[in-house]
Formats: sequence, structure tokens, C-alpha cells
Amino acid sequence: MPKTAILLIDCPDRKGLVAAIANFLLTQNANILHADQHQDNELGLFFMRIEFSFEQTEGDEGAFRRDFALLAESLNMHWRLEYAERKPKVALFVSQYLHCIADLLQRHQSGELRCEIPVVISNHPDAAALAGFYNIPFHLIEVNRQNKQQAEAQQIKLIEEHGIDLIVLARYMQILSPEFCRRYPLRVINVHHSFLPAFVGAKPYHAAFARGVKLIGSTSHYVTEVLDDGPIIEQDVTRISHTDELDDLIQKGRDLERLVLSRAVRWHLERRILSYANKTVIFS
Amino acid sequence: MPKTAILLIDCPDRKGLVAAIANFLLTQNANILHADQHQDNELGLFFMRIEFSFEQTEGDEGAFRRDFALLAESLNMHWRLEYAERKPKVALFVSQYLHCIADLLQRHQSGELRCEIPVVISNHPDAAALAGFYNIPFHLIEVNRQNKQQAEAQQIKLIEEHGIDLIVLARYMQILSPEFCRRYPLRVINVHHSFLPAFVGAKPYHAAFARGVKLIGSTSHYVTEVLDDGPIIEQDVTRISHTDELDDLIQKGRDLERLVLSRAVRWHLERRILSYANKTVIFS
Amino acid sequence: MPKTAILLIDCPDRKGLVAAIANFLLTQNANILHADQHQDNELGLFFMRIEFSFEQTEGDEGAFRRDFALLAESLNMHWRLEYAERKPKVALFVSQYLHCIADLLQRHQSGELRCEIPVVISNHPDAAALAGFYNIPFHLIEVNRQNKQQAEAQQIKLIEEHGIDLIVLARYMQILSPEFCRRYPLRVINVHHSFLPAFVGAKPYHAAFARGVKLIGSTSHYVTEVLDDGPIIEQDVTRISHTDELDDLIQKGRDLERLVLSRAVRWHLERRILSYANKTVIFS
Amino acid sequence: MPKTAILLIDCPDRKGLVAAIANFLLTQNANILHADQHQDNELGLFFMRIEFSFEQTEGDEGAFRRDFALLAESLNMHWRLEYAERKPKVALFVSQYLHCIADLLQRHQSGELRCEIPVVISNHPDAAALAGFYNIPFHLIEVNRQNKQQAEAQQIKLIEEHGIDLIVLARYMQILSPEFCRRYPLRVINVHHSFLPAFVGAKPYHAAFARGVKLIGSTSHYVTEVLDDGPIIEQDVTRISHTDELDDLIQKGRDLERLVLSRAVRWHLERRILSYANKTVIFS
Repeated sequence: MPKTAILLIDCPDRKGLVAAIANFLLTQNANILHADQHQDNELGLFFMRIEFSFEQTEGDEGAFRRDFALLAESLNMHWRLEYAERKPKVALFVSQYLHCIADLLQRHQSGELRCEIPVVISNHPDAAALAGFYNIPFHLIEVNRQNKQQAEAQQIKLIEEHGIDLIVLARYMQILSPEFCRRYPLRVINVHHSFLPAFVGAKPYHAAFARGVKLIGSTSHYVTEVLDDGPIIEQDVTRISHTDELDDLIQKGRDLERLVLSRAVRWHLERRILSYANKTVIFS
Repeated sequence: MPKTAILLIDCPDRKGLVAAIANFLLTQNANILHADQHQDNELGLFFMRIEFSFEQTEGDEGAFRRDFALLAESLNMHWRLEYAERKPKVALFVSQYLHCIADLLQRHQSGELRCEIPVVISNHPDAAALAGFYNIPFHLIEVNRQNKQQAEAQQIKLIEEHGIDLIVLARYMQILSPEFCRRYPLRVINVHHSFLPAFVGAKPYHAAFARGVKLIGSTSHYVTEVLDDGPIIEQDVTRISHTDELDDLIQKGRDLERLVLSRAVRWHLERRILSYANKTVIFS
Repeated sequence: MPKTAILLIDCPDRKGLVAAIANFLLTQNANILHADQHQDNELGLFFMRIEFSFEQTEGDEGAFRRDFALLAESLNMHWRLEYAERKPKVALFVSQYLHCIADLLQRHQSGELRCEIPVVISNHPDAAALAGFYNIPFHLIEVNRQNKQQAEAQQIKLIEEHGIDLIVLARYMQILSPEFCRRYPLRVINVHHSFLPAFVGAKPYHAAFARGVKLIGSTSHYVTEVLDDGPIIEQDVTRISHTDELDDLIQKGRDLERLVLSRAVRWHLERRILSYANKTVIFS
Repeated sequence: MPKTAILLIDCPDRKGLVAAIANFLLTQNANILHADQHQDNELGLFFMRIEFSFEQTEGDEGAFRRDFALLAESLNMHWRLEYAERKPKVALFVSQYLHCIADLLQRHQSGELRCEIPVVISNHPDAAALAGFYNIPFHLIEVNRQNKQQAEAQQIKLIEEHGIDLIVLARYMQILSPEFCRRYPLRVINVHHSFLPAFVGAKPYHAAFARGVKLIGSTSHYVTEVLDDGPIIEQDVTRISHTDELDDLIQKGRDLERLVLSRAVRWHLERRILSYANKTVIFS
């Protein structure tokens, strides 16, 4: 039976790249299902995502990787090969607001998010029942000023035990330590409830209300050490007016948060995101 | 023949306000065509816009104003009465980019903007032909570091001579002096090519490109002494992706600039905007 | 303690309406919290929604209604008075797709939808667990060609027993009989997964895909006897491209369905909707 | 000096296509600047757009075309090779509404639309001054029931004389004959002022107003013999409410018309559109 895999490549741009990659896949008798590429002509960079199917027996993967590694080295490529059949493992972090996690769990159950979710981690007990309903182990790890380091150690222990690929901060209201952020580069997705870079930091809806903006936004991004500054994955906005009070902004904003976070998670799981220069390429 | 007028009111909120205003209009035998009101319950403020028609002979306007002034005083109202037949006078300021002014002039010609435009003022000659095509006197007033004060004096002279009600900065690339801004409060509308408060100041498209945002925006606002900080009238955004280069942002942004500036101008001309607390109420 | 109530009025337009209503509320010592009105000048109709608070003891409601009825009769008004403290009762109808009902139940739990949901009715067992999680009785009423009439009789029995005010078709995939529709005018809200009036009827995503549209939409509307033809409450769209396959349309569409259905339900519960001429007024 | 060219390809999908094309360009020493491809896996079709630069002397183009033709034949490709330096020639058709043509001419002047516009053709004199301002010959060809055939003959004569590549119907309010449509397949772009397929035919804003929709739209499409049924290039919508009267719809719609028509024209000029199965692929 044919297997489906995804190849993600980034490298310095040069003549003959597409030919080299396409020829390699042809020699492997691979069938390209979908391909998308991007060139940053200013920086001289080349990016490609290829989804392909091929007949492969168990032992062949090693050979494929060895052969491609040779090509990649000669062309100075960074690359990842991901088999579609292997589902990424996701940890959901949450605090008291449940709209994002409820949305993600329902999408997961309906088959929209191809991943396993072995663990929900929270600093509040509120999400326990919901996690239970979807049969996902729930871990309460309380966080305060004194115990932050130990709390993160517990979180990391769970992440390592479960072989977590992606951490999703579904309105997790604690700031992660620089050490934690550095440990999982491009593996932690957060949703910030503003149109970044406007209204960085705490209480963005209050700030938007005070400034009198006519649209509010929401942003999903990879987490870096600098607060609300990582590569933006997705943003969306909705219209407000003078008739909207602060509570209306918060309520309308929840819809945006659900949308931009779930899109980011889905794209990450489908290996459609590459990041460079603190930006993202979202392959179609 | 009946005349149409617009009454704009703001005052501290209290019981009986709507009754008092409605009763007054009834005694004047006015016919309400359209009414919209807003209450800021937090600040305890009341805002109303009423469009009404009434039979009135020339001399009656003074009586109407006198009578309403009595009511207004008793209820601590700020108010304006505007007759629809009197078209506001608008001065267009422009520099080298012509897309906004071309758009405004075409809208004006097609009847979409109910105003007179007695003057176009620019620090560059580029818009002269366009102004000429629409039969609007064009004044070239060059501005540099040395002559800023004199240049503004010339501008103010033209504004006063023509009895200008509204100054529209249609991509006018000079920063107005604090004195100029203070002279015309809520009478100068600017378009800033970003989603404020993100990317205040110069080169917002460059900044948006560098940050890797997924939407770019544009903002029209009243000008105050603080750069890009006045009450926001309208904002809009459009989606971009990693495939968009800086020039694409600039090109897509022009469409936003046209839209948000023309909407702000139209709403101002239709007396649909009230401003308070550095925000705007846009009446429907 | 003050009570909050909402008055919804529609009547032929005429001079003095606002004064009459405002004076009445003043005599009742009511405090207007929010008011919005609309005039259809072409049809000569007047619509108003007033939210107000007043001190009222139990017995007073009858007096208020009696007094207002006199005024209303003299001005030929249709009117409703709703007390905010009385929560409407909602029945959710669903079939196999759970994304809308999951969304509505989560919004209800978080306090976004002010209502009681005494019953979930479905022709499939799929939603039973979800209803159970939120502690809402679930009734499986299977529907086929033969038993449609009896099935609707069972549904009606439940609706009457629970004193249901609003029926929400959260992707309920059965067409209701004309008798059912006539029985609950403006009390049944449906979501149709297209931008009506495009793609009426079955399989709208398939039809949209075949036509090659660049945006797909979703529409919530009151149900009438004519399929997908009732007064539209809310619509929204999202962009698609040639890279989206049919499954992508369906997936993107689900997000729209959730949004437009939940907005319609919320607005209905907040008594913000009036319907006339097969259209809706959505008060702010 | 290097030249830039665009290769547009569509053919049955099969293994090795990308390799064959990329290898060919490598042998020609071409430098790929931008590439985008699309596969319709259901229909088994492959589409590609490649923008590339290469050193080429005058005589080489023939050789390039000959060589690529051999490859194309072996792979059953339809293909076009377009040199960026050759600007397409565009004829603008217009009637009385000038907002679209004014917009297109301003965009052309500012360099946004890379084409020549040798002729404006109209059945009304209204656009003559505007065409004159932009130094474009204006031809008044009146059309009525009796002379339609002769009028189209005159239009065709002008089109042929000027070697027109693309005809843009900028709110041209006459229906073209089937013969005319067949003569210029995928070479006539129209803007229809509705969200197709809703509100086909005359007076779509009136129909939208009567139906009570909450969004109005606009659609640009290639013209075919069937009215408003050709491949859709672009669509956009804007929100309306019960407060918008018919004139407001028309006014808001004009902004949509400008946007969707100008985008379609730009994409066509940039050779970013391929059409199949009555749909369009819009390459990025």
C-alpha cells in the first residue's frame, strides 16, 4: 500500500534546485500529490513543501533518508521528512477560560485535527471535566510566584514522558520562562487576544477599548523568549463600534481566538508552516 | 418647501432626555426622518443625532436656535444644528501619491460626497493636472525645514479665505505643527497606512513587512497634536501572505487607504461623527 | 431592586411617536439604558427597541402593561414587553454533525447565551453524550418518510411540555413540515450552509465547489414554509481558492456555521430582532 | 541583459512533470524567479506558472519555443510563453457609470496595471472627458435594438486594428452577442454587481435589497455566452444592515466593483490566471 509523506525544505536559492528535488523524487518512484514553493528573492532563500505518495516497505525509509541527506548536503538544505501516518502528539495548556480548549477538543473529535492529545495541563481545575469527557488525562499543576520553576519542571516531565511534539497554549495565562521557551523552539503555539503588534502584554481588550479602535483582532504565533513577539502564524479581526462595551469586545474576541488558534494548530499538524526571519511561510 | 436639518447632541445622561428632545421637535412640528442615539453608561454620557424635516421660512432658523438653546442650557447639552442644504467646504491636502485624491475627486463628481471643494493644496506639483481636470484651484505650497511656519501661514490664509470646514489629508506627507492641529480640532482628517495603534509613524508598510503580520490595515482619524493618536474614525484590513513582497503590501494598502479615508470624509460630511474621550461615535 | 425590561415596538410611522413613548417611560419613572430605532421611510414604518430599568413591585407589571396597551392602541402599535430576568427556553435540534451544538452548549455554559436549554432533540444518537455532559435531557426521535407526522407530533409534545420559546436547528438535517413551520413563526432559527439566496437546498458546498466561487458563506434565518427563504438574520463568508477541495470547503464552512448560528441565537435571546417584509431589523 | 518570461502550462497529471519542466529550464540556463503549481487530483490535471529570467538574444526566442514545443507535445501540454516586456493591449468598454473606469485609468497611470490602453469604447458620451484626460482615444458607438450587429462590427474592427488582447467591461451595460463572446474566449472580463450565482441578471442590488441579505457582493468573471455564468475570477463582499437603503447598497457596491474588477484585470495582465472546467486557478 502506498504511503504518504511530506518533505519540507529550506536552503539558499540557486539554479537547479527544483530540478534536483524533482529528479530525486522521480528516482524514488514517488508520486507528487501537492507541491508549493516560496522564494525570498531579497534574502536569496528557497522554501518547498512536497506531499507525495510512494510504495515503500518498512526498511526503505532509512534508505530514502540516507539518499536524500546526500543531496541535501550538497545543496546546503535544512529538511524534514514526515510520514502522514505518524500523528503528532499535542499537549494542551489551559487556565480558566475554556472556549479555546473546548473548540480544539471538539475539532479533534470530529477528525479535523490529525494528532493525538495525550495530556491536558492546567494551573486551574476548571478544564478537568471537559478533558474527562474527551477521555484525555488532566494534570493540575498550580503555578505561583514561588513555585514557577518546579511547576515547569513537572510540565516538562509530562511533555517528555508523552513524547509531545507540540504544546498549544489555549488561553494559558502564565508566562513561560525563557528556559522553557528555548527548550521548545517553534513547538509552542500561543494565541494572543490582540492584533499584534498592537496591544502587546496584559489586558489587550481593555487597551483596545481605551484606544477606540474600530476592529479588534487575535493572533496565533510561535512562542519565543520575547513576550508576544514570536513568528506570527495567523491573525484575524472583527468589526466593533461605539455601541460595543468592553464585555462585547471580550465576547467577540473569543470567536477570533478560537479561529486563529485552531487554524494555527491545524496548519502546524499538517506540516504546512516553515519559519524564518521571525516570520512564517504557510504553504497551501 | 420642507427643509432638512441635523441636530447633534451630547450631554450628561439623565432621565427624560429623549422625551425632552422629542417633545421639542414636536412643538416645532418637525418630522423625524432618522434618529440614532448612544449612551456611554460607564461615563454617564448621552449622544444623539436626529435628522428631521420641517416647514421653515427664512427667519425661523433664528427662533429655532434660540428656543433649543434654552432647552440645551437646562440640560447641559453641547449641540450643533446643521442644515442639509448648506454644503460643507473641504480643502484637500496632498503630496505625491495621487490615489486617494483621485478617488475623492471622482466620488465628489459622482455625487457621493456632498460638499464643495474650493481648493487643493500640495507641497508637490503632481496633483495639479488632476485638480485642473475637476476644475478645482490648485495651490503649490512647498514645505521644507526652513519654511514650515510660513508655509502653514499660507495654508491657513487659504483655509480662512475659503471658509473651509474640513481639511482632508489625502496622503499629505508633512507633519502639521501643533499650532495648526490645535487651530482646527476635529476638522482635520488624516489617513495613516497602518492598523493603528500598530506601526505609528513613518514607513508603516516596511514595519509591517518586517514583523511578518498576516493582515495589513489602514486607519482614518482626526488629527491631534500627538502623531497618529487622534480619535479613530474608520479602520479596515486586508489579508497578506508570505508571497507578498513589500511592493505588494504598498499596492494592497492603497486600496485600504482609499476606502477608509473616503468613508471618514463621507461620514463627517453627513454629520454622523461625534467625538469624545479620544474616540468617535459613528451614528448610523 | 430595579428590574430591567425590553420594549419592542413596530407601528406605522407618524409624528410624535418617540415623544409619546419617551413620555410614557418618564411617567413610569423608567431609566432608559439603551435605545435603538429604525424607520423604513419607503414603507412608512417605525421600529424601536428600548431597554430600561425601573423600580417595580410584583403587582406593577400588570399596571404597566395595561397603561402601555392604551397608548399602543391609540398609535396602532404591535409591541412586546420582555423582562430580562425571565430567561427564554430553547430546544436544540440536531442530527449527526455536532460542531454547531457543541459550540452552542459551550457558549451557554460560559454564560454567553442567556437562556435555559431544557431539551435536545435529535433523529440520531450522536449528540447524546454531549447533551449528557452538559446535563441536558436528550430525546432521540427517529424520522423517516413513513413516520414524519408522528415524529413531529412527539417533537411538538416536548416543545409544549417544556414551554419552549425558541427552536434552534443546529444542523438538523430534516425538512420541517409546513404545519410545523406555521405553528412557530419567527420561533425557529436554522443555519443554512451557503450564502443565501445562492445555493438553496441540498449540498450547497458541492454546488459552490462546482460553480467555482471564491468565497463561501453561511446564513442563519427564521424558518418559514418555503425552504431556505425565511427572513435572514445573519450571514458571513470566508475566502477559498482553487487549492481548496470540497472537504476544505466543508471544513471552512463549519466555522461560518458556528458563527452565524450562534450570533442569531444570541440576538434573538437578547430580543434584538424584529422581522417584517421577510427581512430582519437587528437592533444594536 | 536578462529577460523575464512567464510559462503557463496545463496538462494531464503524471509522474515526472515537474522534473521534466525544471530540467528543461535548467538546460536553457533559466533562473526561476517564482513558481506556483496546482493539481486537480480529482480530474487528474496539472497546472503550473513559472516566472523566470534568462539571457537571450533576439533570435533565441524561436529556438526556445521550438524546443519547449517538443517537450510539451510529448507530455500533452497546453502552454503559453509570455515575455514580461511585451505589454498586453487592453480595450475598456464603459457606459454611464464612471467609477470603475476612473479607478482603472488611475491605477494604470500610477503603474499598477502593466498594459497599454489604446482605446476606450462606450455607448454613451459620459466617459469622453476622462479618457481625454488620460490621453486615450475615445470611441462613441451607440447601441440600440436595431443596430446591435453593426455596433459590434465597429467594436470588433477597433479591437482588431489595435491588436487588443483583453477587453474589460467596466460597467458596460449592454449584453454582448453570443458571436462576440465566442470570438474572444477568456479575453473579456466583466464585473457583475452581485455575489454570483446569487442575483444573476439585471438590477442585482434591487434584488439583494428585496431579499434582505446582510452582505452584498461583487464578482469579476470571464464572459461566456451564458449571462453571468463564466469562470469567476474574484469576488468580495461588504456588510450591510437594515439601516442601509437601496442607495446605500449601490454606493457600497461601487467600492466592491472597483476592487474586484481591478484585481481581475491585474491578475490577467500578470498572466496569473488559468481557466478550466468553468473555474479559474489564480496563481500566487
